[in-house]
Amino acid sequence: MGKYVFGVDIGGTTAKIGLLTEEGEKVELWEIPTRKENNGSSILSDVAESVKAKIAEKNIASEDIIGIGLGVPGAVDADGMCLQAVNLGWSKLNVVKELESLTGFKVKAGNDANVAALGEQWRGGGQGHQNMLLVTLGTGVGGGIINEGKILTGATGSGGEIGHIHLVDDEPEACGCGNNGCFEQYASATGAVRVSRRILAETTEDSVLRGKDFECKDVFDAAKKGDKVAVKCAEKYGYYLGKGIAIASTVVNPEIIVIGGGVSKAGEMLFDLLMPSFKKYVFSGCSTAQFALAKLGNDAGVFGAARMLLY
Amino acid sequence: MGKYVFGVDIGGTTAKIGLLTEEGEKVELWEIPTRKENNGSSILSDVAESVKAKIAEKNIASEDIIGIGLGVPGAVDADGMCLQAVNLGWSKLNVVKELESLTGFKVKAGNDANVAALGEQWRGGGQGHQNMLLVTLGTGVGGGIINEGKILTGATGSGGEIGHIHLVDDEPEACGCGNNGCFEQYASATGAVRVSRRILAETTEDSVLRGKDFECKDVFDAAKKGDKVAVKCAEKYGYYLGKGIAIASTVVNPEIIVIGGGVSKAGEMLFDLLMPSFKKYVFSGCSTAQFALAKLGNDAGVFGAARMLLY
Repeated sequence: MGKYVFGVDIGGTTAKIGLLTEEGEKVELWEIPTRKENNGSSILSDVAESVKAKIAEKNIASEDIIGIGLGVPGAVDADGMCLQAVNLGWSKLNVVKELESLTGFKVKAGNDANVAALGEQWRGGGQGHQNMLLVTLGTGVGGGIINEGKILTGATGSGGEIGHIHLVDDEPEACGCGNNGCFEQYASATGAVRVSRRILAETTEDSVLRGKDFECKDVFDAAKKGDKVAVKCAEKYGYYLGKGIAIASTVVNPEIIVIGGGVSKAGEMLFDLLMPSFKKYVFSGCSTAQFALAKLGNDAGVFGAARMLLY
Repeated sequence: MGKYVFGVDIGGTTAKIGLLTEEGEKVELWEIPTRKENNGSSILSDVAESVKAKIAEKNIASEDIIGIGLGVPGAVDADGMCLQAVNLGWSKLNVVKELESLTGFKVKAGNDANVAALGEQWRGGGQGHQNMLLVTLGTGVGGGIINEGKILTGATGSGGEIGHIHLVDDEPEACGCGNNGCFEQYASATGAVRVSRRILAETTEDSVLRGKDFECKDVFDAAKKGDKVAVKCAEKYGYYLGKGIAIASTVVNPEIIVIGGGVSKAGEMLFDLLMPSFKKYVFSGCSTAQFALAKLGNDAGVFGAARMLLY
């Protein structure tokens, strides 16, 4: 009989829970609602109940459960302390101790972006590589660094927060973090729209984007169809994306760079767009990194959370 | 009877060798010349002979030797392969296998900047901290990242090469690495002089630096004495230094940032100079990092090399 491990990825709306074998095979994957009332005080007990119910349903012996891994939308330090998870209503909660006491199982926890990176390294786009950088291009830019097969957590759980690398001087608009000129102000889906609006404002050239309330996807779709302004927008987006990745790669020298998040649906085209500036700005010793697309989508967090128990 | 470990730091002129106890106490530290003739083919055998002679002299039993750690002026990957060490004449040499076969002892090897970082974390300015960034300000800017007490080597041994973070756009002069606008073009000792020359050229204001063939140290000395132009130069230097450190810190979230190298002789003044731009550009989650000066000077490499055998 093999052993089992649970992976839990807590989001603002639902918590995804996975029951996996220790080899990383998915036995079952389900979701429960994230109850945010009373500062999210029911979230971990709901997770605990759901895990216990699944163990009973599947009739698994306690000694065959290796533990529970937890991905949280906030920084989690090495001791399991989550200082803040705004989307859940949490402030200063030791999520490891809490869930251990609720379940009696061993618990490990990490920031959701870092945990997703680990999932992609274990079973997704980074499989087979011990040193990986995940770049998640969504509403913001998330990141995760896998060093020798493990999450680089950092001192306060903010390791791999590459979305807030300072990239551009003289940016008049502030990033959500309070700084100006962060990588995510240009390379997120929102950033792509912002960059594109600026390019549209600089020219009177005709474009399907003009006068529309367009999204990031529209820019890439129009560029694929040959809309000249959209091509410029996509190239500028790629310029920023490649530059930010080059800087992060110069610091940690990844073997492979995996790109995920909503924007990654643009596919291999992204690599062509980012490569010129990546090559221009990366240190030569780090320039051989491979690029790949993320493979696990929204399941990455569940896999990565489980993986933390297995190393 | 305790056990012993050797740490070897190979430089272009001499190799420093240390015999240490496993607790990190220095038993003896000496140097041998680095013979670079014939593509440096004698360097490792010279080290092996010197180590064996010391073991005989001290009458230490082979089973009490834990091994030999090696710091090399070039990138070394996880398998011990040094792809190139220009200053030694080496190209593609597996230094671990070579020195193991020459001595019969276990060998570990790393890039000298990374190994020095480990030394500072173990017994120097970063002692007591598991996550550390070393910034070495010399002719160039070297760096090393210690993650959970171990060197972050990266895919090809270029982890922590923060001197080549892209920092400034539109830099007309090329860095030694071939790129333009690298951190070390501004924050190295050479960079400080370059930045200062530009400031002097922009003004006609009187300064003790004007018309002189000054060095980095002269800039800080003049600034300490209140020379107004030198103060501007030092502040600009601090601006670049803080910005580069902020970017690296946003990526890896160190607990402590240790500053070493020749420029660090300017002392605590450096922290005052870099802090405004560090605070401005670092991600808030990484802003609580402490700063300290390196303590081990040229011995850091010997300590760090030895330390690799002990984890």
